[in-house]
Formats: sequence, C-alpha cells, structure tokens
Amino acid sequence: MSQTPILSASRRIRSTPFTRRVTEHGVKGYTVYNRMLLPTLFESAEADYHHLKKHVQVWDVACERQVEVNGPDAQSLMQSITPRNLGKMKDDQCYYIPVVDDKGGMLNDPVAVKHADNRWWISIADSDLLYWIKGLALGKGLNVDIFEPDVSPLGVQGPKSEDLMARVVGEDIRNLSFFRHRTYRFGDQNFLVARSGYSKQGGFEIYVDGSEHGEMIWDMLFEAGEEFQVRAGCPNLIERIEGGLISYGNDMTRENSPIECGLVKFCHTSAMADCIGGDVLMAEKKNGPKQIIRGIKIEGDAVPSCHGPWPIIDASGAKIGQVTSAAWSPDFGTNVAIGMVDRDHWDIGNQVSVQAPDRNRNATITFLPFE
Amino acid sequence: MSQTPILSASRRIRSTPFTRRVTEHGVKGYTVYNRMLLPTLFESAEADYHHLKKHVQVWDVACERQVEVNGPDAQSLMQSITPRNLGKMKDDQCYYIPVVDDKGGMLNDPVAVKHADNRWWISIADSDLLYWIKGLALGKGLNVDIFEPDVSPLGVQGPKSEDLMARVVGEDIRNLSFFRHRTYRFGDQNFLVARSGYSKQGGFEIYVDGSEHGEMIWDMLFEAGEEFQVRAGCPNLIERIEGGLISYGNDMTRENSPIECGLVKFCHTSAMADCIGGDVLMAEKKNGPKQIIRGIKIEGDAVPSCHGPWPIIDASGAKIGQVTSAAWSPDFGTNVAIGMVDRDHWDIGNQVSVQAPDRNRNATITFLPFE
Repeated sequence: MSQTPILSASRRIRSTPFTRRVTEHGVKGYTVYNRMLLPTLFESAEADYHHLKKHVQVWDVACERQVEVNGPDAQSLMQSITPRNLGKMKDDQCYYIPVVDDKGGMLNDPVAVKHADNRWWISIADSDLLYWIKGLALGKGLNVDIFEPDVSPLGVQGPKSEDLMARVVGEDIRNLSFFRHRTYRFGDQNFLVARSGYSKQGGFEIYVDGSEHGEMIWDMLFEAGEEFQVRAGCPNLIERIEGGLISYGNDMTRENSPIECGLVKFCHTSAMADCIGGDVLMAEKKNGPKQIIRGIKIEGDAVPSCHGPWPIIDASGAKIGQVTSAAWSPDFGTNVAIGMVDRDHWDIGNQVSVQAPDRNRNATITFLPFE
Repeated sequence: MSQTPILSASRRIRSTPFTRRVTEHGVKGYTVYNRMLLPTLFESAEADYHHLKKHVQVWDVACERQVEVNGPDAQSLMQSITPRNLGKMKDDQCYYIPVVDDKGGMLNDPVAVKHADNRWWISIADSDLLYWIKGLALGKGLNVDIFEPDVSPLGVQGPKSEDLMARVVGEDIRNLSFFRHRTYRFGDQNFLVARSGYSKQGGFEIYVDGSEHGEMIWDMLFEAGEEFQVRAGCPNLIERIEGGLISYGNDMTRENSPIECGLVKFCHTSAMADCIGGDVLMAEKKNGPKQIIRGIKIEGDAVPSCHGPWPIIDASGAKIGQVTSAAWSPDFGTNVAIGMVDRDHWDIGNQVSVQAPDRNRNATITFLPFE
C-alpha cells in the first residue's frame, strides 16, 4: 500500500450517526469495519494513546453492528454457534464469545448482549455474522427472527469514564459491574449501557438505539466532559496490543481455532455437544493446539506499520510463527506485537527473530497482556 | 467524511497478489471491498475514464473473492440461493445471479462460475456470501464443502482488451463468447479466463489461481500491452453509472428485492419453488415492485461525491426516491446517477428534484444504461 492512500467515498462504506461530529473533531484517518467508517487517528497515535490512558475519550464504534436474534429458538441457536457455555448467563450480562464454524475456525469474536432467553444482540467484529446465523437458522428451520437493528454503540473509554458517565446519567452507574448492562436516561429517553469496551482503561458502551439520537448523546458527553478533558478518540493500536486485545481479521482468521487464540477458557467441555465444531475443539483441547497467540517484544527503533503477517524465524532461519499487529509502545519503551507462535517455540522468554519489512529484528516471546 | 481521509493499514484490510504492482503504477485512492484493497483512482477519475473507453486497462479486482461450492449437493444448493434458473447452465458458463434471503432481500449479486454440477466458484460482491451459504448447507445437513480458494481475478478491460489478450494467450481467445470461460496458458501454467468484467467496454477476467502467480501475469500483460497503451486501471464510477452497472451496497442492500433492482429477468417462475424467498418474489413479480432502479440525469455543474443517499423529491416536496451513485459524465455532458424511484414517479422523462449536498437540483428520470 502506498504511504498515504486516500479512502474513496461511497454509500457502500457507511457513515455512522456520529460521523459529522467525528469530522468536526478533526479525525485524520479511518479504517473500514463491517463496511462502515471507523476512525483510527485524531491527533497522532501516540498523543491519542497518552490521552486515553490519562483522561476519557468518546469513540464512534457504530461499526460494531448488532445482530438481533429474536424468537423462541434464540437461546438454543445462540448456544449452537459458540463453545462458551451460555447456560448460566443472566438477562443483564454480556459475554465475549468465540463463534466457530464446523471445523472450529473463528468466524467472529463478538460480545453477546442478552436481553432475555428469546432476545439477544450480538455486537460483532468485522465479518457478516448475520449471514452465518441467518443461514443456519433457515437451514434448520428454527423459529427465530434475525436482523440488524438501527443500534450504534458509542464508546466512553479511559480512567475518567465513570466520572463522566456519572455526571451525565447519575451516580448509580458506578454500581454497574463489568460486562453487565442496564438502561440509563439520556435526555428524555432510555438507552442500554454496558460496562465494556475495546480498551483496558475501563469504560462503557452506550447502545444508541435510533440513529437520530446519536448527536444528542455525543453532545451531552462533551458538554459534561470539559472538566475531564474529554476528547474524540478511537481504538488505539498501541494500547490494544499492550492490553492483549486481539483483533479479528488481524490476529486471527477462519484459519485459527479459539484455542490457538488463547480463548480456551471460553471453550467449555459442557457446551461442546451443542456447539457446531465442538468435536474438533474437544480434540484440540485434549491434544493441545499447534500454535498459540503470544505477546512479542521486538527490539530496535519503532517498527513500520504492520499490514501483513511478518514471519517469525528461529536461529536456523525456519519459520516458527508470524506477527500480525505491531507498534512502538512509549510506556514499555519497546515495540509491542501480537502473533501466533508454533508449539515448540512458544515458551515465554524464547529469543526469536522477526522479519519486519525494514530488516530482521531480534525479538522475545512474552505474555499477553504485556507486563 | 473529511476531504482527504487516510486509509489506515492493517492486516485485516487485505493486500492482493497485485498490490505491489498497483502501487508501482501510482494508485492514488482505494476503497475496501470484502476486506480487501480495491483501487479507485490512478491519474484522475476523468482521465482513467477516457483511457478505459479508448484503450485497455489491467484491473486488480482480487477483492471479487471466490466462494467454492464443491460436492454432490452443490447444484441443488446453488439453485436454492437464487431465483435465476440454473437448470440449463453449461459447465463453461458464467451467470450473474441475484442471491436473496427468505424475505427476497438482496444478499449479494455475484457471478456464478460453473465448473461442473458438483463444483462452482461464486465471484462475490461486497458481503460474506460464504457465511450465508455455509450456514445454510450446515443447517440443512448438505454434503458439500464451502471455502474461499486462493483465487484472485485480474481484469483486462477496454476496447483493445481482446487484442491484448490475443497477444498474450493466442488468437483463439477471440472465439470466447460473453460470459463463457476456458483455460488459457500464461507462461507454463493454465488459468481460467472468462469474457466478463465490471465495465461496458468489453474485456476479460483472469482467475489467478495461486497468489504467487499474480505478478507474473500482470507483467506479461504490460509487456505485451505497450503498443495498446495499456495502463493500470480500476472500476470507474462514471463509466459504470453510464453503463447501468449497479453496485451492491451502493445502489441496493438487503432492503431491496432483485425486482426493484431491475433484475426481474433473472427471477424465473420456474425456479421460485426451489429458491429461498421465492414465494415473496413471486408475489412481487405478480403485483409489481413498489420502486425500481432508474437512471437519473441531474442538471447543473459536477455534483459532489455521493456517499449517502440523496433524497429525490417531487414538485410538492414529497420524497419519491433516492440517488445512490452519481458523477459528472464528460461524454453525456451532464451528471449521471443511479437511484430508486417510487412506482408513481418512475416514468421515463419524469421531472424531479434531487437534494444534493450542495443544493437542490433539477433532474430527469431516464433509462439505465444511459442512452
């Protein structure tokens, strides 16, 4: 890709209820996620990063589209798409769930938002999970409606996010537990809020139900947020790598099982019989995966931007894995990276070499999240 | 969207086997299509357009990913996803097929490439059709394998495309009929070539099977193409609107039926009983659609770039449709556009008004393709 490729506009790449505000706040870069605009840059990756870890940011994550699963067969359909046991999930809970195909390959890693046994939202990563679930339901003849509602998440992330949200919706929000949701009042209407988000700095996601309310809620957050130095922000590559937040399409694809992705804790033996691909995952759980996701510290100055897998090689020059996300971390004073490493080479502390586009670099296998 | 948003790089937005060559040839803009880079601009939209209509261009359309459907149940599965009757399709034919859900809504408008009753490629527009087909097959318990092979189409488009291809693979290619395919020799290997492509200037698509061959084939086309003034190009917005080539995600979505999209000729009564959503389409075919896709001539100077629907209104100010693609056409000397227009207002020659972002403009309903 050339150095400064321009993203051409079209209706196919959807704007969000917040795009006008994001533009006013000086967005400098985008990616496309679920065929929707996702901001990637405001001031600079490092300035955005330092601000996120110190203050509070409002994120346009409308691209986390919702798949609504609604009807008598919703609960059993949901259990069939994931190896995570949903049996004890409460109606106010959110679960991060690996979704796999019949070969145990990752199709998406969404957050399931349960409203009731017969009503769910699935807040999706970057693939058309609606097509998968709708195809399955139709093929099986299930009694369930599946559609994309007009719901756009707005993230509030950073250490001051709770203070900001308390100012907007009231002190009661401080009692909301991690990955639980409840409705709160914004203006004269209630919206579902979850304590969740794609950073490790703490925060919330407001599920803006009805595009027409987007700017009103955005503006309420900025009016109340001045004293907290609120800014427009977005998922930050450096912070998410440090925090070990893996990204579908980047760090894993259909080629990878959830066990390879370090998600064995969400592959429950008790749920395997009801899950598509459960037999494959059971076997892998028993025998162990061939490779696993790891943190990788890459030596030297800042690496170039990573837009393809970089081979990881051992001392003999043999390929033993690949780096899929990488960035310079100011706080760790090194390049931090995420990648898959083969079984015989995945021990923490193992010294390897990474074939970055500029040159080979020494690197060390380490924990995710970085410590 | 801001004026010059930059597209951030990541592995999730996939490069293609041709990306290095495209970069060397000075690509200036991209869009993202099936999570893959699709060039949108080389010299300028108008210069690219004039060149395309006069000479020959090589297009990186690797983003037309293939879904391979392989196995004993392939033929019946294929017929279940489209209202187009596939019964008489030959093993060397390509069919443009609407793919619809149970409500008759468009899920994709791919080209089906038949190899044999039990082996198909589906060359997809911008949605994860693999998820739909795989979900359906698994839900129904069909005996069929569904996967994305490492196949990347390379387009050769323009009036001199046949001369160029004849120089590279031999004179016999002149006998290849429209939407038929055959294998031809490039270097020491055979590749499938179809007479097809996303322009009205004539041309071919080479299905590059194996990413490692991409640059070799690209280079053969440029070496042989000097006398034909070959250039790197891409689907051109102006030319595709003039030619009435509709675009999934732009001109139609899941909200639209194929009949609304002007595709009633591919909705065969004889195939409806075997097609998901066939009952809905039969009823619509009988009663007529509520709206239909049309050409729209928009008066005045060049319209701004279109990245959201622009309302079409009648003399009373009531909304009667929407414009979804628009551009200035040098050859027609007017703005050409594609949009959906309500039943009572869709007559050719009807005078309407379009609410473009800069101002309201007078417009006329017309034929697609433009004449």
